[in-house]
Amino acid sequence: MAKKNSPKVLILLGSPRKKGNTAILAARAAAAAKAAGARVESVYLHGLNIRPCSACGACQKKNAKGCVIRDDMQSLYPKLREADALLFATPVYWFHMSAQTKLAMDRCYALVEPQGHAFAGKRIGIIMAYGAPDVFSSGGVNALRTFQDAFGFIGAKIVGMVYGCASWRQAARLSPMVQAGRLHPQQALLKAAEDLGKKLAG
Amino acid sequence: MAKKNSPKVLILLGSPRKKGNTAILAARAAAAAKAAGARVESVYLHGLNIRPCSACGACQKKNAKGCVIRDDMQSLYPKLREADALLFATPVYWFHMSAQTKLAMDRCYALVEPQGHAFAGKRIGIIMAYGAPDVFSSGGVNALRTFQDAFGFIGAKIVGMVYGCASWRQAARLSPMVQAGRLHPQQALLKAAEDLGKKLAG
Amino acid sequence: MAKKNSPKVLILLGSPRKKGNTAILAARAAAAAKAAGARVESVYLHGLNIRPCSACGACQKKNAKGCVIRDDMQSLYPKLREADALLFATPVYWFHMSAQTKLAMDRCYALVEPQGHAFAGKRIGIIMAYGAPDVFSSGGVNALRTFQDAFGFIGAKIVGMVYGCASWRQAARLSPMVQAGRLHPQQALLKAAEDLGKKLAG
Amino acid sequence: MAKKNSPKVLILLGSPRKKGNTAILAARAAAAAKAAGARVESVYLHGLNIRPCSACGACQKKNAKGCVIRDDMQSLYPKLREADALLFATPVYWFHMSAQTKLAMDRCYALVEPQGHAFAGKRIGIIMAYGAPDVFSSGGVNALRTFQDAFGFIGAKIVGMVYGCASWRQAARLSPMVQAGRLHPQQALLKAAEDLGKKLAG
Repeated sequence: MAKKNSPKVLILLGSPRKKGNTAILAARAAAAAKAAGARVESVYLHGLNIRPCSACGACQKKNAKGCVIRDDMQSLYPKLREADALLFATPVYWFHMSAQTKLAMDRCYALVEPQGHAFAGKRIGIIMAYGAPDVFSSGGVNALRTFQDAFGFIGAKIVGMVYGCASWRQAARLSPMVQAGRLHPQQALLKAAEDLGKKLAG
Repeated sequence: MAKKNSPKVLILLGSPRKKGNTAILAARAAAAAKAAGARVESVYLHGLNIRPCSACGACQKKNAKGCVIRDDMQSLYPKLREADALLFATPVYWFHMSAQTKLAMDRCYALVEPQGHAFAGKRIGIIMAYGAPDVFSSGGVNALRTFQDAFGFIGAKIVGMVYGCASWRQAARLSPMVQAGRLHPQQALLKAAEDLGKKLAG
Repeated sequence: MAKKNSPKVLILLGSPRKKGNTAILAARAAAAAKAAGARVESVYLHGLNIRPCSACGACQKKNAKGCVIRDDMQSLYPKLREADALLFATPVYWFHMSAQTKLAMDRCYALVEPQGHAFAGKRIGIIMAYGAPDVFSSGGVNALRTFQDAFGFIGAKIVGMVYGCASWRQAARLSPMVQAGRLHPQQALLKAAEDLGKKLAG
Repeated sequence: MAKKNSPKVLILLGSPRKKGNTAILAARAAAAAKAAGARVESVYLHGLNIRPCSACGACQKKNAKGCVIRDDMQSLYPKLREADALLFATPVYWFHMSAQTKLAMDRCYALVEPQGHAFAGKRIGIIMAYGAPDVFSSGGVNALRTFQDAFGFIGAKIVGMVYGCASWRQAARLSPMVQAGRLHPQQALLKAAEDLGKKLAG
């Protein structure tokens, strides 16, 4: 379906779990984006060697050629540049995005370039799952605010944020609003992920 | 059930709707608090004449005798002081608590006293309903943060926050997590309100 | 300087203090906007009779003619519609915007119209002052998040947010960053207000 | 000065810069804590091999013996347990704490134990520096909210948060409040770090 000039969607999987909730949701978004004609690639961050930003500043020097740390970010940078849309899929750990996701984000400082950040103008999607009952009690709000602040600052456009409690049992006990969710919670959340996939396809 | 030395729970109804969602939830909390032995009083803020704080500073002068604005806050101040627990029940309007609720809160500046704020040590409950799908998209988080900051600052203890989407149809369309909520959403949310009522009773 | 087709800037003064810090900052912004060719009007909200939104829903009925509450908002609505830019100037009370400001915001629900909110596309400026040392400890962040959420939702564009501690003595004691601010703090903050005024002029 | 039964303060340095602003502030806090009689140890996280949490769940199984990932967290866990106070010193990267800091935090999931989290009851200090003008525009607020949520949840007590703009030139241009800060900004901020050190010493 996807042609040479089809929009590219890059999915950054920020959970260590390959079959976890964020992965399931991201897969749905991926399928929907493909169905809408996009070329989609998913990157499993936990499997990569990505070192923390060392704040050396080399990437911001005149005539710099990007980040000087030789690790798996080097193969990720071209993909991040070329994508028309980025999907960040992360669990909530300790009231914020996973360290896996934050590691990659911090290294995107190297994409600050004279004409602006390489993400400027790109479509951004967020997928987030948590074990606490809701987006406030889980601390998911802190991650959402971080995404809003960061992408607002660099001029990328968040086209959708899909988030939900991944722990139906706990949700039922602690968060009464979604108790009924035990019946068939996945359909609607997965549907939202599909809608996000379509939006990312442009 | 309630005796002379029973704990007092004061409920501030911040919605103009007497039979709206926050009122329903607050009524459940009230019933549960009564059943737990508390004396409970509910005040319908929308029906009162409460003027905005004029920042005159009279209440903070030496030997001040409270707020100098002669309106319905004067009958509310003694109740606020005497209560062992306060329940703020508010809808979310414009991504924050209702102006009715904020009007009363601002006037509580007059309860800052030499030995601390009159609310210090009291139990606090929050009940909040909104039309948007969830506590982030509704802006309910901004009100929750305000309550956390304010009561943390003055040393009152938030014992529970119960919040949910009041608009099942919209929730179903926009927030897939609670689609199933159409079936019987009230039970669980009302149950949470009851649990909060018990906690407020002490 | 301002001509018939000059942009209109409407300033909503949300502090009860006519010569307070938000008023001073707003006056600077007003002067700068005028100097940039705009027609500027300031409205002192505390002096108006603005009742809380009663959530009657009349303004959202088919063929509705706006809000049915007959108070001073009726003279404010045309000004809010006609303005090209709005400046909300508010102190931080109880870790959020003043009730005066919130009262007016809540009533702007009546400006939700079939084709969108009357504020859509307008330039928005925020001016905020607080007694606590900084924008986090004061709770000013909660008001800023509310403004961001609300104006983002309705499609108005925040062009600048100017905020600062109004209490130099307290700032010096509690927030070491601005201790030096005692020397000549006003110049820079007032300069920022002027820059905001220019942006509001378009 | 410190004796065997002196309180232990553990400082987690989350910046890659050994002589950066957070390090300078943390050093002041350390010195003050020592002067107040505490035993103080600083750990430079960037120099450690700390892998992201793999969400394997082994640490939460019955009779679990902590985290099964064999890296430098293994030598850090005993220190984290034994400390009476923890100081998290982090720069703000991408509108949140550094990935270095988040890596260590995520791995503290292994300190969730049957009787509660190992941090419960400990004193917590936060030191944070950023390049943007203030704690809101920098996104520092998102990190502070995350710390508040996380330590509130596990029952640790935040005794102080010291934060400031590390880039005086930028601060002067963008955030007028601290323009005067160019004159001698360090004194007051360093003083606050010292006060925090004392509080951490107990």
